[in-house]
Amino acid sequence: MRIFITLICLFLVQATMAQSNDRPSLILTAAGVNKIKANLGTVPLFDKTLEEAMHEVDKEILLGVQVPIPVDMAGGYSHERHKRNFFILQKAGNIYQITGEEKYAKYVKDCLLAYAEMYPTLPLHPTMKSYATGKIFWQCLNDANWLVYVSQAYDCIYNYLTQKERKVLEEDLFIPFANFLSIENPKFFNRIHNHSTWANAAVGMIGLAMNHEELIQRALYGLSNDGIDQNEVDNDGGFLKIKGVQKAGFLAQLDYSFSPDGYFSEGPYYLRYAIFPFLVFGKALQNKKPELDIFNYRDEVLSKAVDALLQLSDSRGLFFSFNDALKGMSINAREIVTAVDAMYYYKEDNADLLSIVEKQNKVVLDETGFKVAQALKEGKVSSFQKRSITFGDGKDGNEGGVGVVRAEDLDLVFKYSAQGMGHGHFDKLSIALHDAKGEVLQDYGAVRWVNVDQKGGGRYLPENRSFGKQTIGHNTLVVDEVSHYEASVKKGEAAHPVLYNASIDEANFQILSAIDSTAYKGVKMHRTLISYNDEALIKPIIIDVFRADAQSTHQYDLPYWYMGHLLSTSQTINKESSQLNVLGKDYGYQHLWYEGNLIADQSFNQMCWMANNNFYTISTAGQEGDEFIFARAGANDPNFNLRPEQVYIQRRTGDSNTCFINVIESHGTYDPVTEIPLKPFSQISGLKTIRDDAEYTVVEIELHSKEKYILFLSQADNTRQKNHSIIINQKEWTWQGVSKIFKIK
Amino acid sequence: MRIFITLICLFLVQATMAQSNDRPSLILTAAGVNKIKANLGTVPLFDKTLEEAMHEVDKEILLGVQVPIPVDMAGGYSHERHKRNFFILQKAGNIYQITGEEKYAKYVKDCLLAYAEMYPTLPLHPTMKSYATGKIFWQCLNDANWLVYVSQAYDCIYNYLTQKERKVLEEDLFIPFANFLSIENPKFFNRIHNHSTWANAAVGMIGLAMNHEELIQRALYGLSNDGIDQNEVDNDGGFLKIKGVQKAGFLAQLDYSFSPDGYFSEGPYYLRYAIFPFLVFGKALQNKKPELDIFNYRDEVLSKAVDALLQLSDSRGLFFSFNDALKGMSINAREIVTAVDAMYYYKEDNADLLSIVEKQNKVVLDETGFKVAQALKEGKVSSFQKRSITFGDGKDGNEGGVGVVRAEDLDLVFKYSAQGMGHGHFDKLSIALHDAKGEVLQDYGAVRWVNVDQKGGGRYLPENRSFGKQTIGHNTLVVDEVSHYEASVKKGEAAHPVLYNASIDEANFQILSAIDSTAYKGVKMHRTLISYNDEALIKPIIIDVFRADAQSTHQYDLPYWYMGHLLSTSQTINKESSQLNVLGKDYGYQHLWYEGNLIADQSFNQMCWMANNNFYTISTAGQEGDEFIFARAGANDPNFNLRPEQVYIQRRTGDSNTCFINVIESHGTYDPVTEIPLKPFSQISGLKTIRDDAEYTVVEIELHSKEKYILFLSQADNTRQKNHSIIINQKEWTWQGVSKIFKIK
Repeated sequence: MRIFITLICLFLVQATMAQSNDRPSLILTAAGVNKIKANLGTVPLFDKTLEEAMHEVDKEILLGVQVPIPVDMAGGYSHERHKRNFFILQKAGNIYQITGEEKYAKYVKDCLLAYAEMYPTLPLHPTMKSYATGKIFWQCLNDANWLVYVSQAYDCIYNYLTQKERKVLEEDLFIPFANFLSIENPKFFNRIHNHSTWANAAVGMIGLAMNHEELIQRALYGLSNDGIDQNEVDNDGGFLKIKGVQKAGFLAQLDYSFSPDGYFSEGPYYLRYAIFPFLVFGKALQNKKPELDIFNYRDEVLSKAVDALLQLSDSRGLFFSFNDALKGMSINAREIVTAVDAMYYYKEDNADLLSIVEKQNKVVLDETGFKVAQALKEGKVSSFQKRSITFGDGKDGNEGGVGVVRAEDLDLVFKYSAQGMGHGHFDKLSIALHDAKGEVLQDYGAVRWVNVDQKGGGRYLPENRSFGKQTIGHNTLVVDEVSHYEASVKKGEAAHPVLYNASIDEANFQILSAIDSTAYKGVKMHRTLISYNDEALIKPIIIDVFRADAQSTHQYDLPYWYMGHLLSTSQTINKESSQLNVLGKDYGYQHLWYEGNLIADQSFNQMCWMANNNFYTISTAGQEGDEFIFARAGANDPNFNLRPEQVYIQRRTGDSNTCFINVIESHGTYDPVTEIPLKPFSQISGLKTIRDDAEYTVVEIELHSKEKYILFLSQADNTRQKNHSIIINQKEWTWQGVSKIFKIK
Repeated sequence: MRIFITLICLFLVQATMAQSNDRPSLILTAAGVNKIKANLGTVPLFDKTLEEAMHEVDKEILLGVQVPIPVDMAGGYSHERHKRNFFILQKAGNIYQITGEEKYAKYVKDCLLAYAEMYPTLPLHPTMKSYATGKIFWQCLNDANWLVYVSQAYDCIYNYLTQKERKVLEEDLFIPFANFLSIENPKFFNRIHNHSTWANAAVGMIGLAMNHEELIQRALYGLSNDGIDQNEVDNDGGFLKIKGVQKAGFLAQLDYSFSPDGYFSEGPYYLRYAIFPFLVFGKALQNKKPELDIFNYRDEVLSKAVDALLQLSDSRGLFFSFNDALKGMSINAREIVTAVDAMYYYKEDNADLLSIVEKQNKVVLDETGFKVAQALKEGKVSSFQKRSITFGDGKDGNEGGVGVVRAEDLDLVFKYSAQGMGHGHFDKLSIALHDAKGEVLQDYGAVRWVNVDQKGGGRYLPENRSFGKQTIGHNTLVVDEVSHYEASVKKGEAAHPVLYNASIDEANFQILSAIDSTAYKGVKMHRTLISYNDEALIKPIIIDVFRADAQSTHQYDLPYWYMGHLLSTSQTINKESSQLNVLGKDYGYQHLWYEGNLIADQSFNQMCWMANNNFYTISTAGQEGDEFIFARAGANDPNFNLRPEQVYIQRRTGDSNTCFINVIESHGTYDPVTEIPLKPFSQISGLKTIRDDAEYTVVEIELHSKEKYILFLSQADNTRQKNHSIIINQKEWTWQGVSKIFKIK
């Protein structure tokens, strides 16, 4: 076997030599470089990015080559150093091509040779904490990152190197590196998973850089025989194999990673991460294997994924944070810079993307970035429009999905997607609400400080599993204090909610509705969210109708994780004054301090709070005896891993069928500089359930200004053309379709 | 008496008539208006401000005159409506003068006549919750605000009105209004207090507008006989009378409200509020009584106060929030717009103020704003420099003070001031730390939501007294769980700390040091803060040496209210897992949940946290057995009035003399978009007390990079020229002055 590989290597090294004149050829091209060179100094944003990159790389060159023996976890020195190295090497290679300054090529060469000297003697990384331990880093995933970037650096200095130097690098470093990430780590390489996309891209990129056809084929089509057990899971609890899927490799990732409309099952935080190798390897394939026509593959799925990413961010450009997401990640991430530049380059009529580039204020140092910067200079920009939108989940887009209802400055996110693999949370039918200044009803996200060594080496913390993923940590229904699917990823991956209705075209009356019958045995959950506006309203209101149908009685908890500060409730809260206890025993409840409650002595209740200097009220049409619980995260949290976030839980006990009816209202603003509150009080004076059963839910909303609205919801029949007629208090009401609001007065 | 007043009125109305051609004459002048008119459309920032004001006023004109019967507290309809009225009236008057459009004059006239119709029949405001209840508002203070603004509107439309209309307004509205605020409310009018400044300005402004000499004199010199008892207090617990001060009126306010360098005893949040009537009435006096030369009064104290305001804000322009301050108030406040425009107008060489105007992005609609906008247009702007600075407190500047040490992006605030009257907190020798992005060690500020009706009508909440003002809510020493002065304003107002040393001229070695021997009987507290920088350090470090000398043993608590999230401690915390109890019984401790502690098993301890995406560490040179407590606000808080802020308390029990030695370090940054931490770990590997007694404190700081620093502090002799010599481990160390740091290696 060893002889065989060596023979292939020798053959390929020779084959490569023959083509050496075409360099660079991977991400940059010789023709592109000429074009960039000819226009240097005339395209401001490109020049600025180049200057910043040169400044950064120059500092590293002064510091000298730093290739330490790998020992640390993320956050530690060796980890952060090697990570910095691959970013710098890629930049240095590009700068060398663009400026022709030899010092950049020399730095890349010296650094790569240092790696080539170390690599053959490297054992597995000493941490041994991953299902796929790397060599340079604690996990193969980071090793793959390294190779994706370094392949580009290698391509850029290819012609600068002697044949002998190339031989050393390829034989001692790149080929063993690629084999380690693939043949030697089939569990890492052959999954349908973002980890494997990185692995495929890494092996494919270095294959293309070396014109190593076997590696290229391996990257595109995977290992034919990986021997992975169907039940094996990774560190995050995700299955290595998707049931029924045998294919592997980059093209299979494209087939299975996204829904037809570009949604990625783990959500936007991970899509941002996952899309990068697709785009970089895609760009390289477009240059070197244009016959694959990769950007048109699967009906332009990559382009759709980029649009999905941009749409799944709030007004500030921060991604909606469901599943294992970290707060603060945004469209300014380097991956999105790459994505937006690439889409502008490869697709037509994308001038709206330029408005995103303006916010990012940087471009990629290649032809895609150059084209974007030039277009900006020419003033071609148009405004990027975020819109109400839905995405199907799963390969065929029929495994539930996510939707965003946008109304004025409000972004309401509704998650009725499938489990989302290892990074998924048990949060069927969960919502989140953002306004122009930030979160209003939050998804807690992941319990993790990425790369912060002090917090468990930057990995997922234990509370991610015991709290972050649990249902009570989300704005959705918890039955009997047990999480969806009893918090089993296996059960969760086997099922998903079903979209019931999506009508988001009429700005003042938008509906999203979905049903889940799988999260709890014997309980059908049906949530309908309506954004409604009318001239009598200050802003669009959100009507949240959450029905549960069950055979037996249950305790139902509907949490709202509100941001900001509680201002008032329509009844007095029994606040715990001198002692706090935990709210429950398991499924995340053990992490909540019980701060107080109130037992409703009427059906109509309100809770008003201030978030982002805006006034919000949740009005509830409940029933006497409903309990409203106020709690805060932080119990059973020995290392202060949890943020002390607060939750307002609506609890109903002893019902079999029940319906939580709430109106969420953004009604006012506060300015801490003028100290002037505008419209600090809810407009709603009453909220009543007129009818609620398996067939229909009818709700009456009354304003202080005396307007009344009656909402009719068909809960059992989602046919668009269906005519409905029901009688209430001897009066007949008729309408067509799933839902209708009548304004009275 | 009635006849007498009526006679005066008649006389003055006639006197006024004679001068009517000079209008406007109060804030705007006829000459100034001509100049503005001649340049309209050519000075962008002025034009923009005018346009915005017209847009705002036009909407109100469309709505029509709204003068409701006063019934509500702040936040309620009638309060907010009358407040809006006076802002709009003032603007409408100015716009009338500038544009000449009659509709603005008519709106002002109609509105004022509506007030004149209502006012004579108005009883006291029905709320009766103030020591000085108003008529239009719940407190006279707001009534005075109204008159300050409306006087300007009246002056602007004076010539537009018929003599008969003027007579109605003056006899039915303005004169009774001014008498109500003065003669009928001596406790409100005759104090040395910001409330009275408003009262004086209100009476003075309408006096000037009517050329009513008696009112003008009353405003300038107060009521000669007020009959106020020396022990009477206001709603905030402040004394109405300052001991030994008999003077009253506007000039007395100027004499007593500020220290010679412009500091205001209640702090910048209230200075911002208090300075406004000084400036507005000052501008009016400058126009109508230039012989007073008000802006040069008391060695330009108003100009110094404006500079103090600007200096007492952080990098974002937000005011340091000590005493009863609200968070979020900033140099963008309308009062500061007025202040900056006035200072630029009346003083020379203030081009740096223009950089503040650029941030404010608006100007006052008078000649001061016009001059500023014109200067900006001409590109005269230079950058405003914030600097390390100290201010003396008290009329003569010798009652302690406050200091700000600025080092790179860090603003360290040290408060060794006097009590600060009714809005003062029990926080002798307290500190706060800000970086470029916000608070790092916070002063909690006031427990209040200004004008938010849901929170106690927007007034101070009960927890302001029971927690906000208490010592434990601040970053300073608490002895035996009792607040400074046993939380008695009376005791607090009778004493103050003393500045021991201030050397802030050398950027890399700045010292502030102060002593308090009055807050606790038998305990002398001496805190020294040093900002030190060196090439081996990432950023300047802050050395915090807090000595307490006492005759008997005590429990000493030193709290640090750190913002952000705890990352790690050098010893494991015993965190409460399933139950929280309150930390103590009284003086604010009853509001803290005890979350955990650790008992030091060595003298060197560290606590690392992340605030504003920066890494911070507090290193402690303590002693074995020191307790470190982690707590959070929120206990005994039935209405959720407290923010759930966290505190790290260093506790030492059983010592008589003791010294808390800490180094506060800003050593790293985190970027949630790149997810890259830079320098996440403290540089400090050791911190040792070498000597500590009443004479000297000597501290050794060691870095991981092996540099050592030895700090010498003379604790008993603050003579600058004094030569010190002490022997440590047979080695003699000599230096001159209060403090010295030697670098070893």
